[in-house]
Amino acid sequence: MGTTLTAGDVADLAAGCALLGSGGGGDPHAFRLVLEGLLAERGPVRVVDPDDLPADALAVNVGFLGAPVVMTEKLFCEEPVVLAVEGMRRRLGRPVDAVMAAEIGGANGLSAAIAGSLLGLPVVDADGMGRAFPMSDQVSYSIHGRSASPTVASTEHGDVVCVESPDNRRVEDLVRAVSTANGAQCFTADYPLSGDDVRECAVLGSVSLARRLGAALADCRRGRRDPLDALAAAFAPQGPTAVRALFAGKVVDRRHATEGGFDRGTVTLASVPAGRTMTLDFQNEFLVARADGQVVATTPDIISVVDAETFSAIGSEGIRYGQRVRVVGIEAPARMRTPRALEVVGPGAFGLDLDYVPVRDGGS
Amino acid sequence: MGTTLTAGDVADLAAGCALLGSGGGGDPHAFRLVLEGLLAERGPVRVVDPDDLPADALAVNVGFLGAPVVMTEKLFCEEPVVLAVEGMRRRLGRPVDAVMAAEIGGANGLSAAIAGSLLGLPVVDADGMGRAFPMSDQVSYSIHGRSASPTVASTEHGDVVCVESPDNRRVEDLVRAVSTANGAQCFTADYPLSGDDVRECAVLGSVSLARRLGAALADCRRGRRDPLDALAAAFAPQGPTAVRALFAGKVVDRRHATEGGFDRGTVTLASVPAGRTMTLDFQNEFLVARADGQVVATTPDIISVVDAETFSAIGSEGIRYGQRVRVVGIEAPARMRTPRALEVVGPGAFGLDLDYVPVRDGGS
Repeated sequence: MGTTLTAGDVADLAAGCALLGSGGGGDPHAFRLVLEGLLAERGPVRVVDPDDLPADALAVNVGFLGAPVVMTEKLFCEEPVVLAVEGMRRRLGRPVDAVMAAEIGGANGLSAAIAGSLLGLPVVDADGMGRAFPMSDQVSYSIHGRSASPTVASTEHGDVVCVESPDNRRVEDLVRAVSTANGAQCFTADYPLSGDDVRECAVLGSVSLARRLGAALADCRRGRRDPLDALAAAFAPQGPTAVRALFAGKVVDRRHATEGGFDRGTVTLASVPAGRTMTLDFQNEFLVARADGQVVATTPDIISVVDAETFSAIGSEGIRYGQRVRVVGIEAPARMRTPRALEVVGPGAFGLDLDYVPVRDGGS
Repeated sequence: MGTTLTAGDVADLAAGCALLGSGGGGDPHAFRLVLEGLLAERGPVRVVDPDDLPADALAVNVGFLGAPVVMTEKLFCEEPVVLAVEGMRRRLGRPVDAVMAAEIGGANGLSAAIAGSLLGLPVVDADGMGRAFPMSDQVSYSIHGRSASPTVASTEHGDVVCVESPDNRRVEDLVRAVSTANGAQCFTADYPLSGDDVRECAVLGSVSLARRLGAALADCRRGRRDPLDALAAAFAPQGPTAVRALFAGKVVDRRHATEGGFDRGTVTLASVPAGRTMTLDFQNEFLVARADGQVVATTPDIISVVDAETFSAIGSEGIRYGQRVRVVGIEAPARMRTPRALEVVGPGAFGLDLDYVPVRDGGS
């Protein structure tokens, strides 16, 4: 069974993707406008339940790869989306049956629907991260032993680069180099999967989840529900998911550098009235939350900063001095918390000398 | 009519390629040993006259792309050579009929014969530069409007990257990024050409020329001939070519940095006894020669430094304090000196605020 995505559904989807982004994946605002326009003009996109994918169907992951801050600076361009999927079709010598989001978090959660609309393809109700991560191989498919090759990267200049390697991290390194040479942004089609691969490896139901989360945040904005209860209820169909308030306060500092194709930095929050402090380290995504120096949440759990009044999630690149915010910790999907997964997406994978501190055990 | 290249021919070919490298293209020493071994083991490689290529033959250019200093540091590996040509065949969906050197200068002048031996393909007696240049689009094919796409880059890790772009400089930028991500070296197959393309665009006869130059240098080493006369005679079948002595002296300084995938720097020479000075600016290749501050030769003419005793050419990466050397200026092939060519390979193409100073008009 599947559903459809219409222009009227995009606002909730975008809000949910932003929350799941853990501060990364790019601000969905511009992509929301693009997708609303496409769906209004071309009609709805079909969202396919992973269970309905034929075993030998070809599903291709899509999304932008680069520094989120650049996604907000460059105008959206349709051509690379078409070039990347077309490049994948050509390389594999067979039609692509469906597209899916490599990461549901942030703007990239909308990339699959944009590609689906442009190419007339359905979108799979699943993704590879259940959130956003900085590197393309920090994905459940790689954790489950699937190959990133071929990965096809494309740019707004009409460049098409097909990368193949026995090593998924080398694919990431090489595509990152291409992205950096293009101003820290390119579009990619990667991890070609069969229907069986999707069912065995992907984070399932994530498009539906993002829509439910967006609807829940809208309810909170209308004052109808307690935010944590509303979010927990939206997660419930995915299985029990810990959702915790980690902090409330205002932004007092944000330091960052765009280097090596990533945004890296630290955000500092102070309670109001003053007394407590939270720091959030990010590499595109928020990776570690420390309350008064004590680690209270780490990757792979989702650390999201939301506006204290509107409950809109704010990306690491959108944080500004003086914003009043809440920090929410959300347990990562089970497939991203296995011992093998923690090697790829846990704190150590980012060079941090920390153990995984589950949101389930911590928070305030 | 063609010839063959046997193990016994490689020493002359390598010496000639080194001289034509204008200090770049990589030290041929290691490639000479590799090629001698291959030819001894597998038999000679056929060298095809461009006139004998069928109009619709597919000739593919090959060579290493990166910083020459890295070519002398990494051990030669056969796998990337095979992967790149095989990637080209797969992308174009037809067999490759011959390989040729994108640049005859330096180690890359031997790359085509190495590829020919490994793949059982003939080598075309032509190249794309008549020397070496730092960037892959500084090639006569691009000057004549041919496309670099597809360019297939490969690495010793088994990575294969196929780059396509409407813009040859963007192909260079993207492949350079791939090379840099691989430690400033990769192997490439690029500029797929028909037989007619080769005849219309390439620098013709350059493999034969390199062999003649190497033989002439060997004669000089044996004290049989005056170096300038010997070199001029070797060039004569290509048409009249100015060959001038620009300087003689010792190396007193060499400054360089490996950055952005290139070696850049300046070599300073002093006459013996002291009194006159020459500086040589390089970006992989020597680009400008100044005698006592006065420009006496510039790109695209070849500026080569040879050992004062052995007449072996020394690459920009091989220059060491105290070496006794001569500097030779050699007129570039006619196809690299047209007004259109000078836009791509003249001093301005390297950001130098200089006009082309032909060796024909200057020297000492």
